[in-house]
Amino acid sequence: MDIATIIGYVLSFGLIIGSIMMGGDIVAFIDVPSALIVVGGTIACAFIMESMGNVLGAVKVAKNTLTQKGANPAETIKTILELSNTARREGILALENQKVDDAFLAKGLRLAVDGLPREEIRETLTVELVSMKQRHVRGQKLFKFLKDTAPSMGMIGTLVGLVNMLANLEDPASIGPAMAVALLTTLYGAVMAFVVCGPIAEKLERRTADETANMTVVIEGVDAIVKGHNAAVIKDRLQARLAPNARPQDQEAA
Amino acid sequence: MDIATIIGYVLSFGLIIGSIMMGGDIVAFIDVPSALIVVGGTIACAFIMESMGNVLGAVKVAKNTLTQKGANPAETIKTILELSNTARREGILALENQKVDDAFLAKGLRLAVDGLPREEIRETLTVELVSMKQRHVRGQKLFKFLKDTAPSMGMIGTLVGLVNMLANLEDPASIGPAMAVALLTTLYGAVMAFVVCGPIAEKLERRTADETANMTVVIEGVDAIVKGHNAAVIKDRLQARLAPNARPQDQEAA
Amino acid sequence: MDIATIIGYVLSFGLIIGSIMMGGDIVAFIDVPSALIVVGGTIACAFIMESMGNVLGAVKVAKNTLTQKGANPAETIKTILELSNTARREGILALENQKVDDAFLAKGLRLAVDGLPREEIRETLTVELVSMKQRHVRGQKLFKFLKDTAPSMGMIGTLVGLVNMLANLEDPASIGPAMAVALLTTLYGAVMAFVVCGPIAEKLERRTADETANMTVVIEGVDAIVKGHNAAVIKDRLQARLAPNARPQDQEAA
Amino acid sequence: MDIATIIGYVLSFGLIIGSIMMGGDIVAFIDVPSALIVVGGTIACAFIMESMGNVLGAVKVAKNTLTQKGANPAETIKTILELSNTARREGILALENQKVDDAFLAKGLRLAVDGLPREEIRETLTVELVSMKQRHVRGQKLFKFLKDTAPSMGMIGTLVGLVNMLANLEDPASIGPAMAVALLTTLYGAVMAFVVCGPIAEKLERRTADETANMTVVIEGVDAIVKGHNAAVIKDRLQARLAPNARPQDQEAA
Amino acid sequence: MDIATIIGYVLSFGLIIGSIMMGGDIVAFIDVPSALIVVGGTIACAFIMESMGNVLGAVKVAKNTLTQKGANPAETIKTILELSNTARREGILALENQKVDDAFLAKGLRLAVDGLPREEIRETLTVELVSMKQRHVRGQKLFKFLKDTAPSMGMIGTLVGLVNMLANLEDPASIGPAMAVALLTTLYGAVMAFVVCGPIAEKLERRTADETANMTVVIEGVDAIVKGHNAAVIKDRLQARLAPNARPQDQEAA
Repeated sequence: MDIATIIGYVLSFGLIIGSIMMGGDIVAFIDVPSALIVVGGTIACAFIMESMGNVLGAVKVAKNTLTQKGANPAETIKTILELSNTARREGILALENQKVDDAFLAKGLRLAVDGLPREEIRETLTVELVSMKQRHVRGQKLFKFLKDTAPSMGMIGTLVGLVNMLANLEDPASIGPAMAVALLTTLYGAVMAFVVCGPIAEKLERRTADETANMTVVIEGVDAIVKGHNAAVIKDRLQARLAPNARPQDQEAA
Repeated sequence: MDIATIIGYVLSFGLIIGSIMMGGDIVAFIDVPSALIVVGGTIACAFIMESMGNVLGAVKVAKNTLTQKGANPAETIKTILELSNTARREGILALENQKVDDAFLAKGLRLAVDGLPREEIRETLTVELVSMKQRHVRGQKLFKFLKDTAPSMGMIGTLVGLVNMLANLEDPASIGPAMAVALLTTLYGAVMAFVVCGPIAEKLERRTADETANMTVVIEGVDAIVKGHNAAVIKDRLQARLAPNARPQDQEAA
Repeated sequence: MDIATIIGYVLSFGLIIGSIMMGGDIVAFIDVPSALIVVGGTIACAFIMESMGNVLGAVKVAKNTLTQKGANPAETIKTILELSNTARREGILALENQKVDDAFLAKGLRLAVDGLPREEIRETLTVELVSMKQRHVRGQKLFKFLKDTAPSMGMIGTLVGLVNMLANLEDPASIGPAMAVALLTTLYGAVMAFVVCGPIAEKLERRTADETANMTVVIEGVDAIVKGHNAAVIKDRLQARLAPNARPQDQEAA
Repeated sequence: MDIATIIGYVLSFGLIIGSIMMGGDIVAFIDVPSALIVVGGTIACAFIMESMGNVLGAVKVAKNTLTQKGANPAETIKTILELSNTARREGILALENQKVDDAFLAKGLRLAVDGLPREEIRETLTVELVSMKQRHVRGQKLFKFLKDTAPSMGMIGTLVGLVNMLANLEDPASIGPAMAVALLTTLYGAVMAFVVCGPIAEKLERRTADETANMTVVIEGVDAIVKGHNAAVIKDRLQARLAPNARPQDQEAA
Repeated sequence: MDIATIIGYVLSFGLIIGSIMMGGDIVAFIDVPSALIVVGGTIACAFIMESMGNVLGAVKVAKNTLTQKGANPAETIKTILELSNTARREGILALENQKVDDAFLAKGLRLAVDGLPREEIRETLTVELVSMKQRHVRGQKLFKFLKDTAPSMGMIGTLVGLVNMLANLEDPASIGPAMAVALLTTLYGAVMAFVVCGPIAEKLERRTADETANMTVVIEGVDAIVKGHNAAVIKDRLQARLAPNARPQDQEAA
């Protein structure tokens, strides 16, 4: 898991809880029915909009992209340069025995070793890239839906509390606490939306961008190997996709 | 019907009703005129924006996609692989006698058996895909419109209640209950928008994506059969469109 | 005019007025200055943003699409199939004497009879389609602008009322009625935006989609007639653009 | 300047001021510090987001498009038809002596007279069209930014006023007037956003669409002149871009 | 740094502080816990959504684009015209010894001197342009996220304060000050969002547009030099990308 994500969660919840405890008693902020209607209601709405298999699938995609290390295009470029040297020295069939960690790169090499035409390799890999993006978008949309729905459930909870309170105004002393409880669902909804689900949705989007960049490097790299470009040209081309300061200075590959 | 959808509706309405009953009397939350202005008014606005035939058509699309099982691309790929084996063994005309459940695949096969050129088959099927999407988008937009309009009608109802209340402030005891009733339309609008119509709109969008994926597999598959590719190549190509863990491991087809 | 539109307006206004009269006196909801600032102010803003000729033009487009019957692609396809039969039997010049109601189809036929190359016919008709869409978008944007502006003018009116009320708090009895009047502009703005202008904007969008579908059918149909396709092929192609249940079963045309 | 713009501003401000004066004293609505924080603060934010030269440039673009008459494609088409007749009668070099008001059309003719290949003329003119759009978008975005920022500055001003008021609740008589003043910034922000900046941003967008339509007519027209089409064909093509009722009936040009 | 940015910040904060001091005591507006929950909580959410390296990278991109002078396409065009004259007089290899400040132009010239085919030079440079845009979009999105999150954290802080206040209503005298403090987080969130982060996000977007325009000029310019166009043609082409009044009148280059 990204260490930043842990720090982010600890920090944000710490700050909210700290601000609660500075001004009063945290017990006043814990209300199980309010939590049920916001968290449970929001998840229930997700079940309405998406088949159960897809909800679980999307949650898994989200978990994976949070716990797994993101793609590293610079590393991938280095591997591709080494492979291109091997291919030029020993022929493209020599790539068959190379061990490659990246499953997508491995598939690309297998297609190249199998002797498929360049255009077909590129097309097959591109289809895989597109379908990866579509799966990821599904996960992002689920979390965006949760982010949008949580404040609405919070508002529904608060409205229920307000109507109940307004219909029973006989005891003035109970108005304050009743309204405090009514506001709790709005608070829960805001925390669930803006601290929990929103940042995850954004993180998924960024991870998809990272993986897209990495897969694009693989597609271009395999294409260049099959074309028989030398490593210097490949390096020039692929590194143009990295930020200037992320371009490795490995002299030996060039 | 997706079992998740039923669970989702039962759960969300159960939680809202439960939270009402915990804090007071559910009778205070039932007000027929308020329900009329929100539900009736929202549907009336839908009649303004869309011809009656299209409203009913869109509702039917929505009902279908909720009650019918979604498309299953993995199943479709399996069928296509079997058909491609038949076509290679017995010639493309042998496909005429195959019974195929998927109406879109059946149409594609009929065009292939009729001997239309590849490009024309692809074009005709693609037109059908595009027009399916346009029809579905229409249904989605109707439910998004309902989702956007319901809170507005709720707000209009609340404003009407507030103005009535403010114009008659003589009896202080009536202020609370009057305001409680005024807030009910906002509550109804929020439930109608965020628990009923919003998730349906989202579900329709996902179903369209599923059906698009399935139809794309059919278009590519028929194209590959006509082209005379062998099953292994077709499998490689089509399965690239599935999530890695959804790819069937049927050895016999390859 | 679509009967649904009339029903929609009668129903929505009836419900709002009904809910007003159930809770109080409708006289309390009529305030000419409030109506002036909301309706007049919103229209004044439209004059700022668009030249007067274009405002009137857009209103006319809106009126036309509301009062005229929408396009009927199924009917158009039937006409095209008949024309294609004539063209195959008697030659394309025979189309010169055919009476065709649809002005766009008539123009396409005229270009075909004039012997223009296929690509040029398609291009000229497509330019017309694109420029129809641009004109319609203009009308849609005007009504979306009105929809967005009306609540803002309502809010401005309410703020004016609140400031006036707050600056003169000496008479407590006047607070309620003053605030009731202040809220009226918000109510007017909401009704104007969500019941009047919003649904019209949506309806215009749908009508544009209908007309686009119809014109696309014409463009494809004229193209197929010039190409000399037989009616069966044309029917297959054009009907792919209709919903499955909207496809006519006219055996004689095929 | 469009007369509609003047009417729009006079009308909208007149209605707002009128509604103020009907309900109270206009003096209560004038507060220089409130105006400073809203108007000044909004403009200050514009300086943060855009270099000073570009702010001034965008304001100038806005001023030009408001004060200058918009493009008139029908007029441009008429000129092009006359030029095409001259070119066919006397050769394309005869266009060198033609006086043309539209600077963009003049540039296109100059390139044609210089004997550049058709594709290059089209490319150069298209670059100019694209870069015109980019400059205009910049101006539109500035006014949209002002529109989005003004209500925020209004809210900031109101929050400042509320905090000040709440921290000093000793004198109940001062609460009303203090809150009235606090609300003024919200009112100013709303007027600045929805009456002043919003309509200008929209108007700029429409003007860009007009100018794009006009420049497209010029690009197509110059292309057709160089290609040597006769006036009837050019007229047919170019007028397809106009609304049916805007197509001139000048018989002599055809 | 753009002088306008400094002026903008000084002016906007000066106006806000001034309006605070006019109406009360600035001490009432300083509350460290409120600042912690808004600023700290917002930054913590950014850590959740983005890996730490990328947060820092994006901040650096933001800082660079604020402190560095923006790209100047007019200046770049002048340089390119001089280089094209050199290339025509002394051959393209003579460009090897030219000192060029713009790193992107220098790379383009190096590729040209290396004798790469035109299409490949254009492709490599375009990849670099696209990947620059993707990096910048990342920075923009971070600041947009901060802008969207800050008001949410402000609302969460205010809700916490309100619940605390409502749960302890015994002392009426404390209600005003408690609510004043509760509102401070909303105020902080609005200032952080609309005065600090929003304008930076917008400025980043504009800087990206500037840099894109400049890099496009370089790509077209290098392409034209390799193609061997003379300076007059190049000037015509490149200056079409500038605003009419930004086109330099340097007679000697033409």
